[in-house]
Amino acid sequence: MGRMTERRRVVRIRDGVLSERADTLVGEEPLEIRVAGRQVAVTMRTPGDDFALAAGFLVSEGVFASAQELARIAYCAGATEDGANTYNVVDVRPAEGVELSGLALDRLARNVYTTSSCGLCGKASLDAVHTTARWPLPLTGGPRLTPEVLSALPDRLRAAQRVFRSTGGLHAAGLFTANGGLIDVREDVGRHNAVDKVVGRALTRGALPLTETVLMVSGRASFELVQKAVMAGIPVLAAVSAPSSLAVDLAAESGVTLVGFLRGTSMNVYAGAERLALSVPSGPSGSSDQRLAR
Amino acid sequence: MGRMTERRRVVRIRDGVLSERADTLVGEEPLEIRVAGRQVAVTMRTPGDDFALAAGFLVSEGVFASAQELARIAYCAGATEDGANTYNVVDVRPAEGVELSGLALDRLARNVYTTSSCGLCGKASLDAVHTTARWPLPLTGGPRLTPEVLSALPDRLRAAQRVFRSTGGLHAAGLFTANGGLIDVREDVGRHNAVDKVVGRALTRGALPLTETVLMVSGRASFELVQKAVMAGIPVLAAVSAPSSLAVDLAAESGVTLVGFLRGTSMNVYAGAERLALSVPSGPSGSSDQRLAR
Repeated sequence: MGRMTERRRVVRIRDGVLSERADTLVGEEPLEIRVAGRQVAVTMRTPGDDFALAAGFLVSEGVFASAQELARIAYCAGATEDGANTYNVVDVRPAEGVELSGLALDRLARNVYTTSSCGLCGKASLDAVHTTARWPLPLTGGPRLTPEVLSALPDRLRAAQRVFRSTGGLHAAGLFTANGGLIDVREDVGRHNAVDKVVGRALTRGALPLTETVLMVSGRASFELVQKAVMAGIPVLAAVSAPSSLAVDLAAESGVTLVGFLRGTSMNVYAGAERLALSVPSGPSGSSDQRLAR
Repeated sequence: MGRMTERRRVVRIRDGVLSERADTLVGEEPLEIRVAGRQVAVTMRTPGDDFALAAGFLVSEGVFASAQELARIAYCAGATEDGANTYNVVDVRPAEGVELSGLALDRLARNVYTTSSCGLCGKASLDAVHTTARWPLPLTGGPRLTPEVLSALPDRLRAAQRVFRSTGGLHAAGLFTANGGLIDVREDVGRHNAVDKVVGRALTRGALPLTETVLMVSGRASFELVQKAVMAGIPVLAAVSAPSSLAVDLAAESGVTLVGFLRGTSMNVYAGAERLALSVPSGPSGSSDQRLAR
């Protein structure tokens, strides 16, 4: 069974000085996700919280939306020739009476992690999320946030990253209250996996939809991450770095507040600025600055 | 058709001062890759170099290894109901006489971007790369590198990142000679896409295997990126950030020199240090430092 961190020998070079020592690395192993015995995805992940990863992935893909829809999640024994359990294959059984769409599973099995993309155009990708989303995210409802609360999140996320400190090598997703209180944090070699783990853990404690929360991620904001926020009912997504065009479009259409380049007291709000209760100048663009009311 | 960058309105907050202006974002659109008309993958990518992306992806997955094996690559018209060409579906036709394994395409279609992972364990993932790799990477052959050459690469990569300067929002992969000369650089929202584009462009100019080159990536080094280096015959992979355990294992088994945390005159060499022609202290570990001969 894989571990969150592993030790390897490394040759270090510092200003021409050479040394060899042991180094701590972030673990990476494949995880096969099955639904009712059928393989639907393989992802390279950091071992740990595998059941949550599987559950969160299936929430992101619109297969499940509540803990009641799941009967059980288990590692599959006998995955290797000698029958050993590698703890890298997880099977998710739906609860009795829960009908799974064979078509949806087909689509999922063919397009791992990009099932919402028909492959045709960005617009179709947006539509696919809208047709599978279970919860609306009205801009007039949900949490109100201040820039001060948002500014505090990157440091809080970093402080909670246990594995990053030892390896410097992985992504984090943190779930916060609208007041900036930390609810949960997960780390993984894959940013999408870290988000799925947070969402999966919320599912198992019956917390979906996460309508009063803020999701903070350590890197960029892609379409896929906005999709995961929408599917979990998370109204605010904040990222340390830049969003993509399609991430902004999906956030705008779905009612997600999307914050990028969140660093110190600076940030860019790409969609859903209404939740920040800011009065934006409506005159000629680019020129008029305005101090926030405090 | 999508573009590499797009403009969106953004609300900027800087130290409590609010402004609204246009911002340049990195473009993101789905790309469907087909082989002989059959869908094998959908990836979210930054538009541009789509044929190279498709070709490089198929090199990474062991489907093709030379330009001679390809008849043509084309956008598929008629992908939408009204027959319009969205330039988001690419079909790769093998040359006459080139036999494609239906089994390999099946596997590919089911496990997008993780086809080398059987889902069972890390060891099996390593084995899958070894069985599909076309070129050996002997540690006694290939390029010799100095730490000075490696130290120069991050700045050269950043200087060549045209789109990053305008958006701050995407990954880069740069191909260099053993002397640090820039051969090619590509940028994409997905790190794996950036590498596939570089490899695909090398394929079309008949440059595979890339046995005398160094691949530099902007972020972390995952298993998948080492796999792509192996499949393209690239003997040295350097990353700005940390590698994962499985990335190190694959590099060590495949004869790839893997450099991480390449920043200024500092770097960690996780595998294949032989190519750096360093004399590593062989005594008790961790304690003995040694100055490099210059």
